[in-house]
Amino acid sequence: MANIKPLQDRVLVKRIEVEEKTESGIIIPDTAREKSQEGEVIAVGPGKVLENGTKIELTVKPGDRILFSKYAGTEVKIDGEEYLIMREDDILGIIQK
Amino acid sequence: MANIKPLQDRVLVKRIEVEEKTESGIIIPDTAREKSQEGEVIAVGPGKVLENGTKIELTVKPGDRILFSKYAGTEVKIDGEEYLIMREDDILGIIQK
Amino acid sequence: MANIKPLQDRVLVKRIEVEEKTESGIIIPDTAREKSQEGEVIAVGPGKVLENGTKIELTVKPGDRILFSKYAGTEVKIDGEEYLIMREDDILGIIQK
Amino acid sequence: MANIKPLQDRVLVKRIEVEEKTESGIIIPDTAREKSQEGEVIAVGPGKVLENGTKIELTVKPGDRILFSKYAGTEVKIDGEEYLIMREDDILGIIQK
Amino acid sequence: MANIKPLQDRVLVKRIEVEEKTESGIIIPDTAREKSQEGEVIAVGPGKVLENGTKIELTVKPGDRILFSKYAGTEVKIDGEEYLIMREDDILGIIQK
Amino acid sequence: MANIKPLQDRVLVKRIEVEEKTESGIIIPDTAREKSQEGEVIAVGPGKVLENGTKIELTVKPGDRILFSKYAGTEVKIDGEEYLIMREDDILGIIQK
Amino acid sequence: MANIKPLQDRVLVKRIEVEEKTESGIIIPDTAREKSQEGEVIAVGPGKVLENGTKIELTVKPGDRILFSKYAGTEVKIDGEEYLIMREDDILGIIQK
Repeated sequence: MANIKPLQDRVLVKRIEVEEKTESGIIIPDTAREKSQEGEVIAVGPGKVLENGTKIELTVKPGDRILFSKYAGTEVKIDGEEYLIMREDDILGIIQK
Repeated sequence: MANIKPLQDRVLVKRIEVEEKTESGIIIPDTAREKSQEGEVIAVGPGKVLENGTKIELTVKPGDRILFSKYAGTEVKIDGEEYLIMREDDILGIIQK
Repeated sequence: MANIKPLQDRVLVKRIEVEEKTESGIIIPDTAREKSQEGEVIAVGPGKVLENGTKIELTVKPGDRILFSKYAGTEVKIDGEEYLIMREDDILGIIQK
Repeated sequence: MANIKPLQDRVLVKRIEVEEKTESGIIIPDTAREKSQEGEVIAVGPGKVLENGTKIELTVKPGDRILFSKYAGTEVKIDGEEYLIMREDDILGIIQK
Repeated sequence: MANIKPLQDRVLVKRIEVEEKTESGIIIPDTAREKSQEGEVIAVGPGKVLENGTKIELTVKPGDRILFSKYAGTEVKIDGEEYLIMREDDILGIIQK
Repeated sequence: MANIKPLQDRVLVKRIEVEEKTESGIIIPDTAREKSQEGEVIAVGPGKVLENGTKIELTVKPGDRILFSKYAGTEVKIDGEEYLIMREDDILGIIQK
Repeated sequence: MANIKPLQDRVLVKRIEVEEKTESGIIIPDTAREKSQEGEVIAVGPGKVLENGTKIELTVKPGDRILFSKYAGTEVKIDGEEYLIMREDDILGIIQK
């Protein structure tokens, strides 16, 4: 498992490939498909410091399944695995089980 | 129903297609028509944190019928259904019954 | 009458077409003429929240006749009627009777 | 006289055409000349509200003769007369008699 | 002398043409030369109001000889004389005798 | 060792070249490869001053192994060695041993 | 020596040309070489005023040898000598003897 401690309001995310079928049920191959906007939170930063010094903790926690903006974050490769590091502000919502 | 908890000041919206007729009463087919700017609020985030740490709750509530800016929000697909996730700041007003 | 409750510092405005004559008195047809920048306030939002949480009410009130910037607001159609929803910051002044 | 109450930190100004002669004394016709940057203050708004809620009154008063930036303000026509509505921040200085 | 009271943090400046010679001593004619960035302060505004309402007086005073950024300020003509009105923030430093 | 004391919230970083193999194990030569986004912290600035005067110390410390954004920082050459000086805000996370 | 008192958070800097040799020891002529990013601090401004009125003194002092961003500051000529006037924010670090 990636051993990265994100800084400030950043979140380490593992993208979850969602099997996508067209209306008629055909599975869309990886390349032709837009990248999935779903992922799992792996690690979270300590939070964001506001202009008056107040520190705001993050809402998401490791293990949360989330939905994020299309171009969110930076792709990083750790021990051969692809992850995303994004700001919490790029996370749209938490998918509740 | 979509089980998404929006973050911060974001709102989950289901777009409502409004049957549109030209002046002479002809119904405009989906494709030729501009996307409707009306929708129903499905879920709301906890609110926005200001620069001095104060938290401001959202005005809109689930069930509200709203009017929003043309290019508001991000389109997301949840369980095959299309939704929009937008900031409350992109909502123009609440349509009162 | 449009039943829209604007949000935050937004204002619902009905544009007033001003009969325009050239210097020599010829009435300029609708299309050739620039859109009028005059209108009547139909409804106002609750006000704007500043960065320190203070809420500032709006100055304009329903019934006020106003002058606004050329490209102010978003055009919306409610029950077949055209309105504008704009921020109070786009309103230049109140025309006093 | 124009009966407009400017909003916030806006100022209603009547542009003053200054007779302009070239070095050799020739009067430059209206069209070829750049628009004058001098004007008289007709009406002032109530002032500007800062981010912490403090209200700052305007410095200029009706009757002041002023100098403003070249592209300052919006041109408006009231009862056939041309005026400018600008922010006080676009006013460079007050011409003292 | 120009009778202009600059507003806020603005400064009225008279540009000082500095006789410029090339390395080999040739005086560069006005047109070919870049405009001088030196000038004398003629009048100063009352100061700048910060976002929390505090008023900050200006550092430069009438009579100071200053160095300013190349594209600083707006050119204005007062009684046939050319002046510059600039923000104090565009002034790089005070040339000490 | 480079003897540079970074200012404010800046960090002096030595880029660590990571031996990169393609899926099939071929080592990618330096030039064809994207620059590594891993590095070691050499020195840190005193911290950042917020708009209300509060000073915030940096999180990273000399010796930390970090991951940073692709275009982070400015390349500088000190005693013939290449370093990067970047803002802490460009650092994505700390790689924990 | 240049007798300029920089304003606010500005710093007067004398660029130091660093003799640059290619890997094979050839000295790169002035023109072909990128401008040096090293310099000596000649004079410093009084400091920067934050939005809440707090004044923050500068960290660098006259005599400090510094490293600055490539396009930092404005070139000025004083008594025939070339200097740079830059904001302290453009200074990357202090080179310690």
